[in-house]
Amino acid sequence: MALFVQKYGGSSVADPDCVKNVARRVWRTRKAGHDVVVVVSAMGNATDDLIALAKKVNSNPDAREMDMLLATGEQVSVAMLSMALHALGVKAVSMTGPQAGIIAEPFHRKAKILAVKPRRIVKALKEGHIVIVAGFQGLNRYEDVVTLGRGGSDMTAVALAWALKADRCQFYKDVTGVFTADPSVVPDARKLDEISYDEMLELASLGAEVLQSRSVEFAKNHGVRMEVLSSFENKPGTLVKEEVSDMENIVVRGVVADKKQAKVTILRVPDRPGIAAGIFTALAKANINVDMIVLNVSNQGQLADISFTIPSADLQQALKVVESVVPEVASSGVTHDQNIAKVSIVGVGMRSHSGIAARMFSVLAANGIDIHMISTSEIKISVVISKKQADKAVRVLHREFKLSR
Amino acid sequence: MALFVQKYGGSSVADPDCVKNVARRVWRTRKAGHDVVVVVSAMGNATDDLIALAKKVNSNPDAREMDMLLATGEQVSVAMLSMALHALGVKAVSMTGPQAGIIAEPFHRKAKILAVKPRRIVKALKEGHIVIVAGFQGLNRYEDVVTLGRGGSDMTAVALAWALKADRCQFYKDVTGVFTADPSVVPDARKLDEISYDEMLELASLGAEVLQSRSVEFAKNHGVRMEVLSSFENKPGTLVKEEVSDMENIVVRGVVADKKQAKVTILRVPDRPGIAAGIFTALAKANINVDMIVLNVSNQGQLADISFTIPSADLQQALKVVESVVPEVASSGVTHDQNIAKVSIVGVGMRSHSGIAARMFSVLAANGIDIHMISTSEIKISVVISKKQADKAVRVLHREFKLSR
Repeated sequence: MALFVQKYGGSSVADPDCVKNVARRVWRTRKAGHDVVVVVSAMGNATDDLIALAKKVNSNPDAREMDMLLATGEQVSVAMLSMALHALGVKAVSMTGPQAGIIAEPFHRKAKILAVKPRRIVKALKEGHIVIVAGFQGLNRYEDVVTLGRGGSDMTAVALAWALKADRCQFYKDVTGVFTADPSVVPDARKLDEISYDEMLELASLGAEVLQSRSVEFAKNHGVRMEVLSSFENKPGTLVKEEVSDMENIVVRGVVADKKQAKVTILRVPDRPGIAAGIFTALAKANINVDMIVLNVSNQGQLADISFTIPSADLQQALKVVESVVPEVASSGVTHDQNIAKVSIVGVGMRSHSGIAARMFSVLAANGIDIHMISTSEIKISVVISKKQADKAVRVLHREFKLSR
Repeated sequence: MALFVQKYGGSSVADPDCVKNVARRVWRTRKAGHDVVVVVSAMGNATDDLIALAKKVNSNPDAREMDMLLATGEQVSVAMLSMALHALGVKAVSMTGPQAGIIAEPFHRKAKILAVKPRRIVKALKEGHIVIVAGFQGLNRYEDVVTLGRGGSDMTAVALAWALKADRCQFYKDVTGVFTADPSVVPDARKLDEISYDEMLELASLGAEVLQSRSVEFAKNHGVRMEVLSSFENKPGTLVKEEVSDMENIVVRGVVADKKQAKVTILRVPDRPGIAAGIFTALAKANINVDMIVLNVSNQGQLADISFTIPSADLQQALKVVESVVPEVASSGVTHDQNIAKVSIVGVGMRSHSGIAARMFSVLAANGIDIHMISTSEIKISVVISKKQADKAVRVLHREFKLSR
């Protein structure tokens, strides 16, 4: 008998029929003789609907009151799923995040989990219940409910799996697992049976929207075994786990493209000490996530061109920040390009195999794809190319590294 | 500076515009220099919508899970009202029933309030906040949220007013106060400036749907001053308070008709010891609220006719109960009548004035209205008459006792 923590996202519980479907899946695990703790998100668009409702009385609602409002979304889901399990004759009990012992930072709308005190969950499991926990929320030291920010329900699941020493933390999604590439771009993309935490982390930060980086990082640090699988099909998914030696035999685990990037270039940056630091500090303060940075010093070290990539959504704000920090750089001195994409290959095998970058650049060149920027880490290589060539690049790289085999 | 507890029902916060309207009313009390604690119900039909949602996954949902689900209705309201007050620049903070210190019985969907521990409210008031509390809910000893049953939000308000020693507990309704009679029946019905707890209790139990009996009873026992006033107009309402001597000068305070009654008559009840007790015990066990009872012993004490009135909605069930308790009374021996109404006059002055009943019966007779049953208490006289004469009876009694003066 094992203990599974299962997490179902909002689309898996979008309406009463979906809730019943989830109840049947949970029941199946139960019938196989296992204990189950379920973490659910708010039903479908409930969170967005609540945000829209709030905006009707206050264009800039207070974060504490938003948390009070948003927490109801998950509370509805857990009650509904518990009722659906009762209808199948299964013992189940729902809990809010605070009732489940999720203790979090005081910061509303972006609290991190500080501790898990799963007393009530343990007791309910012993009594033979399936326990259904509201994701995305916890209790802060002022006894207020706080929400955990983006990807918060995933964090709830991983933290509970760790605190309860669960055998596996399963993430039920609308995909059957983690793929070597986006199957809508690469028809012969293959579902991976397993992937290391580090590879999953790189994929998550490179635009693969399967798991949130924060929860993968926590799972890695605390040895929580994760599995990504489909909430609609009944097949094994992809296991995310510690790296084992034979993983290195596979040089490239996957290819991923991020088309939501923009590139900003500042031409002829004046040679003042610390000016680059000033620019990137100001961008960080404005909460703009700068990804790749390239600096070209020209003109005998007096002027430099700086290029960097950021999420497209932050472009307008980034341009304002740059102009405020470097006012002498007139608008003519700052260019930007939204027609770019970042294409990356990821694999722990790169650590022990050389020449992978050269192979990647060669195959792109041979297919007429120009590279604008390059960035590498120990287990990934990213290039910035023209957005309209992104899908082609993913396909040729997928073929080059034989990912469909 | 006074402390007011203000309670707004679901129709007062039915949509975001209504919520803004309530925020403006609360703000007005605040600007006058008073502290305010606000109790709100769920927005409009939110509770009914949640019940309908639950039924889609379970036709007979568990009471604990229903409470988990229903509690979200009020939680949405309090967050919304707090945000609307912030938009007006007012300091406000929302609290769930548990956060507000409402401690209740363990019984889901019908818990009674056991204690109020208003530590957080007191602190927030001291900090200059308007405190907005979710009505209809509390925390039980298992640390689960429970709902308080019908009229529960009124109870939350009265209990908080008592615990906080508030100067007044104000109930904002879609009427401007308590009237001498239903204004839609009696055009010159008059809004009462004040009414005693006992009179209000009689009116509440006689079909005036202004305040719940439970909350009036609590207010009477604990000396909480209540006021009924309009959430749409800006006028003083009706004060519900302890009886003062000059109240007795007014013999009749109001006339009320209850048209949702049915009468059941059991003919020739066999003369077994305790058979009447058996019938009414069985009805009580079936949760059927019997109001008036008339027993006529005939035939030299061997057989009796028993008549009683009950809410129309319970008629079918009541007939079943009667047949199970007195099987020898065939269906021919039980008659029922739904075309009845109970018309009552209420006033503490009846205690010191005689002849009121005679005056009531005379004026009804003079207007061709037959009386089927009579029931009296110290401060009210009720008669059962034909339903189609009910409005006429209310009008002639209103005129007879000069209630519009």
